[in-house]
Amino acid sequence: MVNIGLLGLGTVGTGIVQIIEDRKNYLQKLIGTEINISKILIRDMNKKRRIGIHEDKLTTDFSEIVGDQDIDIIIEVMGGLEEAYVYIREALNRGKHVVTANKAVVAKHLEELTFLAREKNKAFLYEASVGGGIPIIKQLKEQANLNNIQEIKGILNGTSNFLLTKMIEEDLDFKEALKMSQKLGYAEADPTDDIEGYDTRRKLRILTTIGFKDRVKEESILCQGISSIKTIDIQNIKSMDCTIKLLGTATLKDNKYYALVEPVIIKKNSYFGKVDYATNLVSFVGNKVGELRFYGEGAGSFPTANAILSDVIDIILKNYHKNYSLESNDLDNINKLFQGRYYIRTTLENDTKDKMIRYINEKEITDKLITKEKDVAFITKKILKKEIENIISKFNIRTENYFIGRLEV
Amino acid sequence: MVNIGLLGLGTVGTGIVQIIEDRKNYLQKLIGTEINISKILIRDMNKKRRIGIHEDKLTTDFSEIVGDQDIDIIIEVMGGLEEAYVYIREALNRGKHVVTANKAVVAKHLEELTFLAREKNKAFLYEASVGGGIPIIKQLKEQANLNNIQEIKGILNGTSNFLLTKMIEEDLDFKEALKMSQKLGYAEADPTDDIEGYDTRRKLRILTTIGFKDRVKEESILCQGISSIKTIDIQNIKSMDCTIKLLGTATLKDNKYYALVEPVIIKKNSYFGKVDYATNLVSFVGNKVGELRFYGEGAGSFPTANAILSDVIDIILKNYHKNYSLESNDLDNINKLFQGRYYIRTTLENDTKDKMIRYINEKEITDKLITKEKDVAFITKKILKKEIENIISKFNIRTENYFIGRLEV
Repeated sequence: MVNIGLLGLGTVGTGIVQIIEDRKNYLQKLIGTEINISKILIRDMNKKRRIGIHEDKLTTDFSEIVGDQDIDIIIEVMGGLEEAYVYIREALNRGKHVVTANKAVVAKHLEELTFLAREKNKAFLYEASVGGGIPIIKQLKEQANLNNIQEIKGILNGTSNFLLTKMIEEDLDFKEALKMSQKLGYAEADPTDDIEGYDTRRKLRILTTIGFKDRVKEESILCQGISSIKTIDIQNIKSMDCTIKLLGTATLKDNKYYALVEPVIIKKNSYFGKVDYATNLVSFVGNKVGELRFYGEGAGSFPTANAILSDVIDIILKNYHKNYSLESNDLDNINKLFQGRYYIRTTLENDTKDKMIRYINEKEITDKLITKEKDVAFITKKILKKEIENIISKFNIRTENYFIGRLEV
Repeated sequence: MVNIGLLGLGTVGTGIVQIIEDRKNYLQKLIGTEINISKILIRDMNKKRRIGIHEDKLTTDFSEIVGDQDIDIIIEVMGGLEEAYVYIREALNRGKHVVTANKAVVAKHLEELTFLAREKNKAFLYEASVGGGIPIIKQLKEQANLNNIQEIKGILNGTSNFLLTKMIEEDLDFKEALKMSQKLGYAEADPTDDIEGYDTRRKLRILTTIGFKDRVKEESILCQGISSIKTIDIQNIKSMDCTIKLLGTATLKDNKYYALVEPVIIKKNSYFGKVDYATNLVSFVGNKVGELRFYGEGAGSFPTANAILSDVIDIILKNYHKNYSLESNDLDNINKLFQGRYYIRTTLENDTKDKMIRYINEKEITDKLITKEKDVAFITKKILKKEIENIISKFNIRTENYFIGRLEV
């Protein structure tokens, strides 16, 4: 029997228990023994649960789980950052394999936990931390064995994608779309991480670190969110026969790389443009295999639980990269040199507005200009992204008063 | 050192040699030892080669390779059917791991070779046999551990997809498109397997056998090719704002399954509609993970070699499903009950043509009718596919005089 300690019994934890129950006979045949969730860490013993679990299995005390000699694998799906990190580290230190879906912990501590797992000769796997149900982490690790990964690109955050899709499809404004997303369970009460791009940045940091074989930090990724997008932006985007997606993009060439998270305006009918609601798409380019694209559910109880359990099966069957480690290729970050064509909309009082229009006209950086009352929207020629930051700071434009999206059309 | 015997030094074989050379240092670090192609089976010692290979490595005698105690893994990329099969079987029998890209052999002997490998405690892997560079076989095996696979769908043949794309994009007729495909290396001198759908059928047979956990034979898959498609069909399809793809589709519900290979008319802007030229797209639906889609290069030296070498690395690192076997779920094939809306074009002499039009009008199966000289094209209501076969045989229409595509719009 393989005993598992489960940290957390929320949506994903419940999905894990259900899949194991559902596939009981099949898994027993596959691995030759039973998978048993022997202990579950919860916060509140009195909370009502969707599924029937024997009370003896529940505990509020982590030490009961990590101290249990019979537990081989610990699955962490409790969320949060500090506590989860401490538990994962402790579990590895005590000789347990660890599987987690926690992108915040993985993004922050990927190197430390990977090295610790290797030192202890245990697995530290995190398939579910990026792309939900899409099997991307293992893929990328394996393809990076045979390929120089030259580009990684993805719609990696279901919440922001759901929100943007709703705005485009149903002409909702940002607040309405956010409210609806929250009501339907696609956005959290505090949506900051999702709408400001931080969640996408974490995932891109994980993918680039694996794919580019260097320690790409979150700070090395430029990050622009979608919280300031207005109805006028949606109208402008639609009038271009386009849609907008929050994309993580990184390219590597001659040991130099860009890495950005930003709203990108693309043709409605492009591959990325057709990835709607809470689905995710991840693509990467290898110098041998060419471009590979992976599409699937970016979140949800079963898809995420499915990704976690595929890690668990790999551990039980010893089908994981036992010697896997992270490398340091010492790449140069050249985000400062990043150029693109940008859509910029500002909302300003008349005098500032006029000054800004004069300024950008003098600079000759715009192809197109749309003004409407206080809103000025313009599309730039190919310029340094830094230039835009210059304009924003020169005219002291507040965060809520501008929206920027890169054009990929 | 891991010694490999390579059977075949054509496009893919050459790619394998090149990638191993190119990734030498990296692979040595990854697996802790060198990968060495120690012997290569070729047909003609005097043929000029694109790459420099030491003559001592080349042999025209298979027994020299299979008899070599130092060789652990045999890679088969020689193509063909009977000879390749005999060599693979012999290699497994002599205790070698085998990796192959040969879809014809895999389709015909999947069960036998899988069981033999298991008996001998060796690997028989065939990632490259379906989807070229797309890592689909391993994925599907793994997802089928946790999911009931309910649907498998794919553009699986690069040649026919290239050809159809050329016809749609450049208004070429079938012959011109075929000639161009042959000239560019996308179609073989004898393109029968590709354009009649046999190659797609083989791949669908492999995927369904893995995914549905039953031995789905080639004979259990209805198969319709594209060789009779004419310019008028392309025009009709384009006038519907659609495109046409040769799709393999299989669905499973309540132990009953359909499996078909047929031209399918879909919206130009749909996911499958946008997969052009020699690229492939495979999608499957699991009851837990939802739909997953995988896109990539369907053929080519490096993508195929890449897929083969990912199998080789899995063998060396023992990261393959050592106990993997095939199951027999005893499913019912219900192809006879398959229904769809169909586009049918026939080219007939006037009297037969009139009779047929009267017949289909009486049967009330058509939604729409387009006639032009000898060509009659009509779109049916949802009907049994069998009905179409009835019409074809009732009016004794010869293969080259009709074209059928299912509508998925």
